[in-house]
Amino acid sequence: MKRRSVLKTALTTALIAALSVPALAAEPPVKTATDGLPLAERTVPVPVGVSPELAELIGSREIVGMPAVPETLEEWLSFQAQFDAASAQGAEAMLAKTGANFSVGKIAGVTTYLVTPEEIDPRWADTVFVHVHGGAFVFNGGKAAIMEAAWLANGLGVEVISVDYRRPPLHPFPAATDDVIAVWGKITQNYDPAKIAMFGTSAGGNLTLSTTLQLRDAGLPVPGAIMAGTPATDLANVSDSWTTLEGLDPLGQHEGVIAGTFELYAGGKNADDPYLSPVYGDLKGMPPAIFLSGTRDLLLSDTVRMHRAMRDVDVAAELHVYDGQAHGDYIAGFMVDAPESQDALRELNAFFDLHLK
Amino acid sequence: MKRRSVLKTALTTALIAALSVPALAAEPPVKTATDGLPLAERTVPVPVGVSPELAELIGSREIVGMPAVPETLEEWLSFQAQFDAASAQGAEAMLAKTGANFSVGKIAGVTTYLVTPEEIDPRWADTVFVHVHGGAFVFNGGKAAIMEAAWLANGLGVEVISVDYRRPPLHPFPAATDDVIAVWGKITQNYDPAKIAMFGTSAGGNLTLSTTLQLRDAGLPVPGAIMAGTPATDLANVSDSWTTLEGLDPLGQHEGVIAGTFELYAGGKNADDPYLSPVYGDLKGMPPAIFLSGTRDLLLSDTVRMHRAMRDVDVAAELHVYDGQAHGDYIAGFMVDAPESQDALRELNAFFDLHLK
Repeated sequence: MKRRSVLKTALTTALIAALSVPALAAEPPVKTATDGLPLAERTVPVPVGVSPELAELIGSREIVGMPAVPETLEEWLSFQAQFDAASAQGAEAMLAKTGANFSVGKIAGVTTYLVTPEEIDPRWADTVFVHVHGGAFVFNGGKAAIMEAAWLANGLGVEVISVDYRRPPLHPFPAATDDVIAVWGKITQNYDPAKIAMFGTSAGGNLTLSTTLQLRDAGLPVPGAIMAGTPATDLANVSDSWTTLEGLDPLGQHEGVIAGTFELYAGGKNADDPYLSPVYGDLKGMPPAIFLSGTRDLLLSDTVRMHRAMRDVDVAAELHVYDGQAHGDYIAGFMVDAPESQDALRELNAFFDLHLK
Repeated sequence: MKRRSVLKTALTTALIAALSVPALAAEPPVKTATDGLPLAERTVPVPVGVSPELAELIGSREIVGMPAVPETLEEWLSFQAQFDAASAQGAEAMLAKTGANFSVGKIAGVTTYLVTPEEIDPRWADTVFVHVHGGAFVFNGGKAAIMEAAWLANGLGVEVISVDYRRPPLHPFPAATDDVIAVWGKITQNYDPAKIAMFGTSAGGNLTLSTTLQLRDAGLPVPGAIMAGTPATDLANVSDSWTTLEGLDPLGQHEGVIAGTFELYAGGKNADDPYLSPVYGDLKGMPPAIFLSGTRDLLLSDTVRMHRAMRDVDVAAELHVYDGQAHGDYIAGFMVDAPESQDALRELNAFFDLHLK
C-alpha cells in the first residue's frame, strides 16, 4: 500500500507532465518560477556518441575561468595583440596539416589572404569562396584569420579569400562589415556572385549573416550560399545555451570578456539592430544557409534560433548538430583527425554543390 | 603590470583553446579528465529565444524527481494503468482542441485508432499516415495513444491510423514492432506505401525507426518518409544530453523509471541491437526522415546522433531544433497556442509534401 501511494503522488507531480503526455503539462500553471530552473551540480562524462579521436580531445579538457576584462584601450590592444600572436600559431598548424598556401594582398584597400589548396576541385575552378574569420569580433586578425580558411580550402578544394577586416577596440561596427562588403564588391566584378560562397564561424558567422543582409538590403548581389558555423546571432540578449552549457565548452562564458567584446563591437549602437544581431532581421530572400553546432556549444541556442528564423521565412537553411561538440569543434576535430570534422566538410561540400550554380 | 600578468596566465589556459582558435586546443592533452567535466549549480532563466506562450509554459515548470521504480510485475501493471488513465485525459484535451474524431478498430488483429481531422487536405485524400505513440515503450496505450495522432491529423489535414501496439511488462520487444509491421502490411494492401508517412515521438520515434529498418531488411516496402520526434535511439548507452540537461526537462532523468522501462522493453536482448537502438543500425537506403528536438530536450543527443548517422549514409534527413524546448514540447506548445508548434507542423507539411509522391 505504501508504494502505491508513493507512485500516485509522484504521478500527479512529475510523470503526468512528461513521456509524450505533454498536453496535460499545458494545464494552467500552478506556480511561476520567475527565477528560472535550478540546475544541480554534477560530473558530465565524455559523450558516448563521438569518435574515439574526439572523445580523447573532449576527455582532455579542463574548462577554466576567463581572464579579467581589460579596462582601458591600452589593455584591450595589448590583450588583442597577445591573442592574435597565439592564434597565428593555430593558423600555422592548420597550414602545415592541410598543405594549403597563402599570400597576402589588398582588395579595395582591405588586407586579404588568398588561401590556395594543394589541389583545386574542377567544380570550383572558376570561383573563389569568401571567408570572414571569427574571434569575438576583436581577435584573430592578421595571419590568425586564415585557420578556418585553410581547413575549408583544403577540404573542398577551393581557393578562399579571407578578409582581415578592421576590428574593435579601434574600429567598432560597421567597420568590419564595411570591409567585407568592399572586398565583396571587388571580387564580384571578376566572379559570378551566384557561384561564390561566404562563410565564417562564431563572430565570423555573425559577420557573414550581417554582410549578406546588408547586401540584400542595398539591392546588391548576395553570395550563392553561405555557411554560418556556430554563429553569434544575438548580441542583445543572452541565449539559453550560454547558461545551460556553461562549464562544458572551452569558450568559457558570456559574462566577462565575451560580453566585453560584444559591447566594444556594438560601439554604443543598439545591439538588437539586425546588422549586429541578425536573428532579429527580416530574413526573407536570404540565400541558402548551412548551420553547424554541437550539443555542448555555448552558441547552440544562437545557432538554432537563427536556423529557425530563416526557416520561418522559407529560406533553404540546413542545420547540423554534432553530439558532444563545443564551440567550433568541427574545426578543432580536424587537428586530431576526428571523422566528425571530415563529415562536416562532406556536408559543406554537398550543400555548396547543391546551391552554387 | 599586475593585470598584464593575469591576462597572460589566463591566455595560456583558457582563451587559447577557444574563440575560433581550436587548432591550438588540439595540442597534446596535458591531462585526461577521465571522470568528466564538472557542471556547477546555477539558476537557468526562461529562454529569451521562445514565444511568450512557450515562455509562460517553461516559466511555470517545476522539475521534480521521478517516482520509485516499480519492483514487481503487479506494481508495473498498476503503474502502467494509472499512467494510461492520466494520459487518456491528455488525448481528450487534444481531441477537443483540434476537433479531430476517432474510431477504434482492429487491423491484422491489432487494436488501431483511426483519427480523422475536421478537414482533409486534397493532397492527402488518397493516403493515410501511420502513427506509433510514445511513452517509454510502456505507457500511453489505449486512447492515450492518439494525442499526437490528433495533433498531426488536424495540423496537416490527413487521416491517421495510430497503432495501439502490445507493450511491456507483458509484451517486450519485438511485440511492439511486430504489431506495427502487421498493421503496415495490411494498410499497404490498400494504399501506396510511397505515399504513406510513419511518425512518432520519443519511444514512438524509436519504434518508427526500428519498424522501417526491419521492413527494409525484410525487403518489404518502407514508408515514403518518416518523422522521428525526439526519438530514443540508444537504449544501450546514456547519451550526453541525458546528463548535461537533467533538471531542465519535465521528462526527469534517465536513471530510475526510464532506465527501467528500457530494460523491460529489451526483455533480456542486447540493447545495442539496431532494432532496439537504431543509431547502431546500417541505415543505408532508409527513407527520408525529419527529426525534431529542443535545446533542453534530454533526448537531444539521441536525436542528433541519429540524424548524423543517417546523413553519414546520405539519407535525406532534416534536423530542426527548437530553442529552450524540452522533450516533446512541440506538441505541448500546441496546447498553449505557441507559434513554435504551428511552425513544427509547417515543417512537417513541407517535408512530407516534398517526399511523399
